[in-house]
Amino acid sequence: MAAASWSERVLHLLNRMNNFYSAGSCRASCVRFEVDGAQVGWIRPHVAALLSRYPQVFTCPRGGAVSLCQGLDSYEGRSEAVHAVLLALREEDCLTCLRGWRDERYSVMPRFSDPPVMWMERAATSLFGVKRYGVHVNAYTVSDGGEVSMWLARRSSTKQTYPGLLDNMAAGGLAAGVGIKHTLVKECQEEACVPEDTAMTARPAATVSYTYEDEEGVFPESQFVFDLEVPVGFRPRIGDGEVQDFYLLSIEKVKELLASDDFKPNSAMVVLDFLIRHAFVEPDSGLWLSSVSRPGSV
Amino acid sequence: MAAASWSERVLHLLNRMNNFYSAGSCRASCVRFEVDGAQVGWIRPHVAALLSRYPQVFTCPRGGAVSLCQGLDSYEGRSEAVHAVLLALREEDCLTCLRGWRDERYSVMPRFSDPPVMWMERAATSLFGVKRYGVHVNAYTVSDGGEVSMWLARRSSTKQTYPGLLDNMAAGGLAAGVGIKHTLVKECQEEACVPEDTAMTARPAATVSYTYEDEEGVFPESQFVFDLEVPVGFRPRIGDGEVQDFYLLSIEKVKELLASDDFKPNSAMVVLDFLIRHAFVEPDSGLWLSSVSRPGSV
Repeated sequence: MAAASWSERVLHLLNRMNNFYSAGSCRASCVRFEVDGAQVGWIRPHVAALLSRYPQVFTCPRGGAVSLCQGLDSYEGRSEAVHAVLLALREEDCLTCLRGWRDERYSVMPRFSDPPVMWMERAATSLFGVKRYGVHVNAYTVSDGGEVSMWLARRSSTKQTYPGLLDNMAAGGLAAGVGIKHTLVKECQEEACVPEDTAMTARPAATVSYTYEDEEGVFPESQFVFDLEVPVGFRPRIGDGEVQDFYLLSIEKVKELLASDDFKPNSAMVVLDFLIRHAFVEPDSGLWLSSVSRPGSV
Repeated sequence: MAAASWSERVLHLLNRMNNFYSAGSCRASCVRFEVDGAQVGWIRPHVAALLSRYPQVFTCPRGGAVSLCQGLDSYEGRSEAVHAVLLALREEDCLTCLRGWRDERYSVMPRFSDPPVMWMERAATSLFGVKRYGVHVNAYTVSDGGEVSMWLARRSSTKQTYPGLLDNMAAGGLAAGVGIKHTLVKECQEEACVPEDTAMTARPAATVSYTYEDEEGVFPESQFVFDLEVPVGFRPRIGDGEVQDFYLLSIEKVKELLASDDFKPNSAMVVLDFLIRHAFVEPDSGLWLSSVSRPGSV
């Protein structure tokens, strides 16, 4: 068999990152997770079965949805009740994703613009298919001759997720109550020692959204993407130890790498979007938007 | 009651453009439209009932889906069979959307990157909830002092859809077999007399996606958005008569207008995205992405 072309490999990546919408995914067997009548996630059957052991917190699946019990009608009340269940499940050690417990709170809401209805431990969000939001930073330089190069990070080999893979220069999840700009500046400072005034020059560039499933759950995610042009002489430095190295690479090299298994998949999508917006990949390549064009999604 | 703030009005617009995913939409009662086992759209019950009168073309709803009959297994075969049904339904005059018959063919495919499985008359796509794609152009100027202004068009009062409303300088749907770049150049030339070499300097900037329903059907759409900086002295000119006037407006004025009923709604979303990307609306405004963040969608 001929080796897959670059486009084919990238398309494969995009499809994999949206496999929740593929034929044969668990979607048909999932129930909706609803809070106050609005969907905030997806629950797989084996998780729904576990939750049914906590009838004081979760309703049985009804009309294709699991809800929180009546009386759990406040932000803190819902959050604490669900958290207690998650602590018990973690104790049982029956769900591998809870081994990656973070002690980080993520907001749960139907849409990003809605007020949060509760918070949830980050490591548990995939059990409930709750959407997570993050910030990614495409850092790049433009030489006097107009040549664009990109700064990439190699993740520390001790990271819980995707250890040792290539990543954007800086990226991080949106914790409960923390804004987009704040997260941008914080991740730039902590991961790459980028001064605040440099980070603040980053331009809001795109949102990249996808929904994948794997053995640990359902992952609907949207990333707020910033482009940050840095001076040619600038060098990011290792900060909090989440990164083991930084590389300044030509666009050709970045293109080659993003289609390889050496790249954190969602960050590869973010870089692909950069390459399209900066005219390094053709609009008619079939790779623009291909990940978000199913009729079952928007 | 206090007048709604600008943000509230914009949020209302975004929610309206995604009302197919709102509680109480027709989504729960729709069946999937499938071709060759893959979903390509949504069909509402009254349309499914009409289609059941053509059992040689459409299957009865089974497992929540209507499909094309066995034997309709080629691009042309499917297209011609469905087209014959649509011509008959148009003759009956029982579906208002078919009064807007265009004689324009749109491609039907599960994802944008997939090969088309058939073509369909543009005016009928909303009956089948088939996703439509288009190109929108944000044309703008930057003065010597750095001040940004935007060119907007006012649609002709004789347009079939949204007559007399404000719109991007140029925009148009992607017809079957026609590429993104080609559509960009064609719409710039035809609608605004923009020379090809100017149009070709437009930068791929974003995709804007949404799914709304109204009395005429279900409209999943994705727009490929380009930013086109034009010289301060440049003036678009009325071309094919789809536009009655062009205005060069300050960003403040554009902001005010996009939250009004005077703006074609999807074009207002495209302009909002421009304002966020060009730092005229804060990333933390709650308006970035708010339209595409439901857990039921990506």
